[in-house]
Amino acid sequence: MKSNHSPQFAERTLMMKSSVIREMMKFTQQPHVISFAGGLPAAEKFPLDALSDAWHTLFDKTRPSAFQYGPTEGQPSLRKWIGERLQVPVANVIITTGSQQGLDLLGKIFVERNRRLLVEAPTYLGALQAFSIYEPEYVTVPSDEDGIVTEAINAEDCENASFLYLVPNFQNPTGRQLSMRRRQALIEKAQAHNLLLVEDDPYGQLCYSGEQFPTLQSMDPERVVYLGSFSKVLAPGLRVGFIVAPTEILDKLVQAKQATDLHTCSVAQELVYAVVSNGSFDTHLSNIRDLYKQRCDAMMRALEINMPPEVQWTNPMGGMFIWVTLPIHVNTVDLLNAAIEKGVAFVPGGSFFAHTPSHSNTMRLSFATVNATQIEAGIKILSALVIEHINIGK
Amino acid sequence: MKSNHSPQFAERTLMMKSSVIREMMKFTQQPHVISFAGGLPAAEKFPLDALSDAWHTLFDKTRPSAFQYGPTEGQPSLRKWIGERLQVPVANVIITTGSQQGLDLLGKIFVERNRRLLVEAPTYLGALQAFSIYEPEYVTVPSDEDGIVTEAINAEDCENASFLYLVPNFQNPTGRQLSMRRRQALIEKAQAHNLLLVEDDPYGQLCYSGEQFPTLQSMDPERVVYLGSFSKVLAPGLRVGFIVAPTEILDKLVQAKQATDLHTCSVAQELVYAVVSNGSFDTHLSNIRDLYKQRCDAMMRALEINMPPEVQWTNPMGGMFIWVTLPIHVNTVDLLNAAIEKGVAFVPGGSFFAHTPSHSNTMRLSFATVNATQIEAGIKILSALVIEHINIGK
Repeated sequence: MKSNHSPQFAERTLMMKSSVIREMMKFTQQPHVISFAGGLPAAEKFPLDALSDAWHTLFDKTRPSAFQYGPTEGQPSLRKWIGERLQVPVANVIITTGSQQGLDLLGKIFVERNRRLLVEAPTYLGALQAFSIYEPEYVTVPSDEDGIVTEAINAEDCENASFLYLVPNFQNPTGRQLSMRRRQALIEKAQAHNLLLVEDDPYGQLCYSGEQFPTLQSMDPERVVYLGSFSKVLAPGLRVGFIVAPTEILDKLVQAKQATDLHTCSVAQELVYAVVSNGSFDTHLSNIRDLYKQRCDAMMRALEINMPPEVQWTNPMGGMFIWVTLPIHVNTVDLLNAAIEKGVAFVPGGSFFAHTPSHSNTMRLSFATVNATQIEAGIKILSALVIEHINIGK
Repeated sequence: MKSNHSPQFAERTLMMKSSVIREMMKFTQQPHVISFAGGLPAAEKFPLDALSDAWHTLFDKTRPSAFQYGPTEGQPSLRKWIGERLQVPVANVIITTGSQQGLDLLGKIFVERNRRLLVEAPTYLGALQAFSIYEPEYVTVPSDEDGIVTEAINAEDCENASFLYLVPNFQNPTGRQLSMRRRQALIEKAQAHNLLLVEDDPYGQLCYSGEQFPTLQSMDPERVVYLGSFSKVLAPGLRVGFIVAPTEILDKLVQAKQATDLHTCSVAQELVYAVVSNGSFDTHLSNIRDLYKQRCDAMMRALEINMPPEVQWTNPMGGMFIWVTLPIHVNTVDLLNAAIEKGVAFVPGGSFFAHTPSHSNTMRLSFATVNATQIEAGIKILSALVIEHINIGK
């Protein structure tokens, strides 16, 4: 009874492709590789004892509700904790299957063909993947050391736009933080042009030095959709994130989520709640901040010592990433192939732009999962290759 | 800085609505209600001891991989177990965040405007919700006591269709099982008209009596996408399901899933694996089969004793549902309002049709979460109301 069948995919499917990062993960997981590629948190700092203890709460009085179907909006205890922590009404909080699902749900309810979607250049690759399925017309807004250049947002681009998506804190891939002046300017611009803002904030709590600024959501709750995540501050394998949104938008998110996965794993939600609601969560946060700061400092030092003067990089005050710009003639895809042979990995920067190919002379380095010794060794190897590749092109 | 903002949703969003079942859940969760409404499994049979033991495996040698980002395809151990259980290659298995996500992913890669999508009449409400977001042109195929009427599928409807979606075993909402003769006819029809089949099988393992038939997937692996779930046989709060698909389709599902939630909660996957891979899973299955069979029998008896002769219902050999057809002039939405006042709930049948309003004289009864005493009391109340509503219309 077997037969050959050629699947006829939807048109949107033709635009899907597996990400460079994903393909690279297979390589970077080999133990001998010094990987600056992944956006993973440091596994050695997962609060395993707290997670282990948390399990027992599932078999207490909530038993067995964590194993039955649960509400689409999320477990009430966790929503309440988030509401209190962020000082937002609990009714405006929905739990998502990681922040990535938050992006997909926003794509579902806002993004469509023949409508503009404004993104930073560069921007988070996973957001481009999530939104592209819904076939937006991307408008890219440049960014500098203060984050997105608000002056570059013009009225025409905002007209009938789905929203502007940005990562204001320690951005992926640049590590940059949106300045206070720019935050104010952005809110004013959005108000003037009736633009919805989507504020993706997985790294906001990983602030190592300098000042923390208010969220855009707190500055204009009716105009900003805020995405948060426990992936970077607790454990990504749990797949628990959340969205804070104005009521009318939240209602549509709930309907979209119901059709998408009914609700997020209740066991994971209850585990997250048990860990974050006991007093040790802030201690844990402080521990990982210290670790990442040390690693960030180590990478900055190694870059300063080893990289030739033509190379520039960002100076992150938090998060996991440093963005490196090489002379224009150096192609980081070629550089990656050479680096992989020497046992070092990073992500070529081109993937982070909505309109590719572009910026082929950039790369993203993550310092989160590598210790100081590996950072020194890896940056030394990489710098030698960069010098070679600069000279090849001369 | 606050401002008013009117969100401009995508066109597809305007068609989203919260399901009747979801709205009803709020009511049916009140303790005094005898609810035949939800499609929930019986919580008192969740294998809590096995789940509790399973937790420790996460902190064994797999530690801490269940807490880090994992592969989009799913945890290798669970995929391997599914592959062996279903006798399919492990490379053709992807883990999903419940079966509901499987439906969303299939919608993402196959369903689009101006293309037909064939569904049974009636069909699973959650599938309609998942697919409708991608704006299909629904074609409904009638069903009878042997399942979908294959003779009613014509060549024109199959032309450029995304796929035919069906639940062959103990269907939601009818409880019907597709006969062997119809299975063969369906595969032949699909081959003749180059039609892809999506076989959703959450209830296949809940077979109480009669014969089990081969899956459509096993009959033509290149033409059938198979969806499975641990929600009904283990615990839905874990949100773990899976898809078995031909390689070309699986590759696109992986890309779509990556953009949707990166991967399913690894902790939940490892818990499922720990429970199903220890010998007690088949004993557990046997226990819930016995319980549901008793409840099914109790409901059949109660219907026979109490319902007037004008009322008809299906005779399920498995699953969770009985489908009741009342005289044409009885509207089950009105009936539900009256029933709720008397403390009984069910789902009006109209929601299960792609083209509504229709079949307003039908309803779905679930026997899974109610004990024999509740079934007797609830069906007695419901039958009295049915008699009243039949007489009103006369």
